[in-house]
Amino acid sequence: MGVVTPPTDRTPKQDRSRATRRGLLEAAVACLAEHGWAGSTVSVVAERAGVSRGAAQHHFPTREDLFTAAVEYVAEERSAALRALPVQGRTDVVAALVDLYTGPLFRAALQLWVAASNEPQLHPRVTELEARVGRETHRIAVELLAADETKPGVRETVQGLLDMARGLGLANVLTDDTARRRRVVAQWAALVEDALG
Amino acid sequence: MGVVTPPTDRTPKQDRSRATRRGLLEAAVACLAEHGWAGSTVSVVAERAGVSRGAAQHHFPTREDLFTAAVEYVAEERSAALRALPVQGRTDVVAALVDLYTGPLFRAALQLWVAASNEPQLHPRVTELEARVGRETHRIAVELLAADETKPGVRETVQGLLDMARGLGLANVLTDDTARRRRVVAQWAALVEDALG
Repeated sequence: MGVVTPPTDRTPKQDRSRATRRGLLEAAVACLAEHGWAGSTVSVVAERAGVSRGAAQHHFPTREDLFTAAVEYVAEERSAALRALPVQGRTDVVAALVDLYTGPLFRAALQLWVAASNEPQLHPRVTELEARVGRETHRIAVELLAADETKPGVRETVQGLLDMARGLGLANVLTDDTARRRRVVAQWAALVEDALG
Repeated sequence: MGVVTPPTDRTPKQDRSRATRRGLLEAAVACLAEHGWAGSTVSVVAERAGVSRGAAQHHFPTREDLFTAAVEYVAEERSAALRALPVQGRTDVVAALVDLYTGPLFRAALQLWVAASNEPQLHPRVTELEARVGRETHRIAVELLAADETKPGVRETVQGLLDMARGLGLANVLTDDTARRRRVVAQWAALVEDALG
């Protein structure tokens, strides 16, 4: 009787392909965050990831494929990390949610949104991606905040909190806004606590 | 005795120059909002404003001069309009403040911020502009909301509200977010009312 490979097993070749893909996605987000859409091409990302342009195009046929997949991949990693946090008080949850909107992922996503507002090829893909990531973030926020959305106003309280987090992210793009952000987050965490009861 | 021209009088030539300048600034904001930084050059703006490239450069020697002046000019016009609103309830004030972050001025400013994050030439100018416009918007918000900043937390409540407004503006860039925004604004206007007392 021969050895039966279970379907979940992966060959070394598949592992390599997966690692290449992941490397490309991480390089794409870093590149977008640092150089913006205009400075982010498949070639630049391939070089940064240490793979050939051909190998990059095997995984992602177009520039739009690569960058939307990259933002989605990193957003999913971040959501998973957020869900894995130990259960905390609401103040910590508000701070953790706001943290989603600072750092390289937010910078990359912002570059993509702004490019999509002027590039018809990018617009529908980024709109769809943004709606999906937005819904998922809202779900996580509701869960972590133990918010009861059957009560009037609770859904909008959580939405407004995420809008505030997005605005704080934008304020942090040009200058380090950490000190001011901490004070705003502390105060809004208290307002959210009162509102959610 | 000859006619003494009071110093406030303007010659027709000065009036023309002022009108040209204003036309260039308005064309620059519209151009930036529609085409982004990459698509916004002095030539494109001059053509849109119906003046020669040379005339545009007489007013604004560099592209950076033109676009930072444009965003500042329109921001000042908007602030003046906001200050001129009749005294209203806080709910209306919150809605009016949020309105500052939707529409062409916000889109133009967003394009400029994002470009500045990748362009060292633009970065210090936009950072300085943003700080000035941010302080002015905060002052107007405190005044219109009749917020007493000597009370603990009040300053951060107003700051967070403006951060939320900025985040709502960003959510409106790719899709028309008006219906959701109205509900969020209604709920947070109530929370801010409670917080300001």
